[in-house]
Amino acid sequence: MSEMSGSWIDGVPGASVPLDDRGLQYGDGLFETMLLREGRVRFLEAHLARLAAGCARLGISLNGLAPLRAEIAAAAKVAPPLAILKLIVTRGSGPRRGYAATDCAPRRLLTLFTAPAAVDAAGEGVAARLATLRLGENPALAGLKHLNRLENVLAASEPEHATVFESLLLDAAGHLVGGTMSNVFAVRDGRVLTPPVDRCGVAGVLRGIVRRECAALGIGFEERRFRLGELLAADEVFVTNARIGVVCLRRVGEHHFSMNEVASRLARHIEVLDA
Amino acid sequence: MSEMSGSWIDGVPGASVPLDDRGLQYGDGLFETMLLREGRVRFLEAHLARLAAGCARLGISLNGLAPLRAEIAAAAKVAPPLAILKLIVTRGSGPRRGYAATDCAPRRLLTLFTAPAAVDAAGEGVAARLATLRLGENPALAGLKHLNRLENVLAASEPEHATVFESLLLDAAGHLVGGTMSNVFAVRDGRVLTPPVDRCGVAGVLRGIVRRECAALGIGFEERRFRLGELLAADEVFVTNARIGVVCLRRVGEHHFSMNEVASRLARHIEVLDA
Repeated sequence: MSEMSGSWIDGVPGASVPLDDRGLQYGDGLFETMLLREGRVRFLEAHLARLAAGCARLGISLNGLAPLRAEIAAAAKVAPPLAILKLIVTRGSGPRRGYAATDCAPRRLLTLFTAPAAVDAAGEGVAARLATLRLGENPALAGLKHLNRLENVLAASEPEHATVFESLLLDAAGHLVGGTMSNVFAVRDGRVLTPPVDRCGVAGVLRGIVRRECAALGIGFEERRFRLGELLAADEVFVTNARIGVVCLRRVGEHHFSMNEVASRLARHIEVLDA
Repeated sequence: MSEMSGSWIDGVPGASVPLDDRGLQYGDGLFETMLLREGRVRFLEAHLARLAAGCARLGISLNGLAPLRAEIAAAAKVAPPLAILKLIVTRGSGPRRGYAATDCAPRRLLTLFTAPAAVDAAGEGVAARLATLRLGENPALAGLKHLNRLENVLAASEPEHATVFESLLLDAAGHLVGGTMSNVFAVRDGRVLTPPVDRCGVAGVLRGIVRRECAALGIGFEERRFRLGELLAADEVFVTNARIGVVCLRRVGEHHFSMNEVASRLARHIEVLDA
């Protein structure tokens, strides 16, 4: 279980946020969940690049990453050996009530947790199920790791979710999108396939690393829409996020997967990457 | 301009919220924006009924409305003559990181504002425009006044929004949904028409009052999907929310509406309703 071991608001130790913060009022912000090992943030540049791109899309003016880098470095110094650092950037507090975002100063919220034990990626894999909730489509927000996460909350709060490692989500048309907290990949004939995140879903940092490393390792990689049937017909299925890395699924619902060669290779390779 | 004149967290004066509140972390909560006149909350029962229905849909256990009623009454006692009371109910802080909502104690956040001067409903009406952003569809969340409001923020932050009273939103298929902060109605041949809120949009409290009072006044009322063209072909167009009441639009973009008979009648009628 994760235990909080520190939190900072704009670099100052603190554990509360003004009531008028737009992150709270409207979910007006973004977040990053980063893994630290021995005081080093894994894939820090990829996290910061995604955050900066998200801020640009939402019109949140970070005015550079220097203060954030310093605050992350300070948190990393006091982090337990295996830690999670959650960063939230909100649009901050505005001078007026209402949705229009004008004259706001963004707020940086950092929380450090002891990480739970790593998932055994070399093991037999974890179980997943299909969520009952179907994801909506919001192209204006798709791909972003924004704070509007009620669908994830509802899917992860379905009673059966507690019996598995992850719940997979379809859109209204039946296309696979991802997990509640992960991106999902199918492997067929040695090629890796993952859904696009242009209508819904999150462009995960590990998803980007998997794509990059498939290219580096000469593993075929394709991004296109596909349905549950194609997932179940795959040789292997795996999920990723920054905390868990690459994790094989041994089953989705009652359908079992017996192979994990490509996923295990990617997991081992990415596990020891420096950046 | 609205000025804050008091705030309470679970009934205790305060202006900040714990960093781990799920309202901030995930937009995991709901809100109500209520108008107070001379210390009385307009349409209080309708607001509380919608809140309770929303909590039920999201699985937030309020354990009755008694504490909330007492807190609202206490805030109303110190309210300026014309005031806005914004209530946020979040799922609270949970014992664990992550989306799954278990063992949370909901948190009640009340903020009192001086209301801006009332919109002159009997006047010539206000201007609206069409937002560039198209609303996504999230049936699992549609109708709820939840905290996942990034689309509203983005639409209200489009530069042209500052030049009008309201921006109207279409879905991806081109159906009218509502305004960034209001529900929208067309009047044709004396009948009132408004879009459903089953795929996106908010089931506004004033929207419910308009429906009820149309029945009381013998005005035809219909809820169905329609496109911008049908809106522009209407005799009258009006928008509603709890703060502004019923407000006529004199134009949408460059298209002008010259009539406001039904809207004005509804505005005057609803303005003096007791509940």
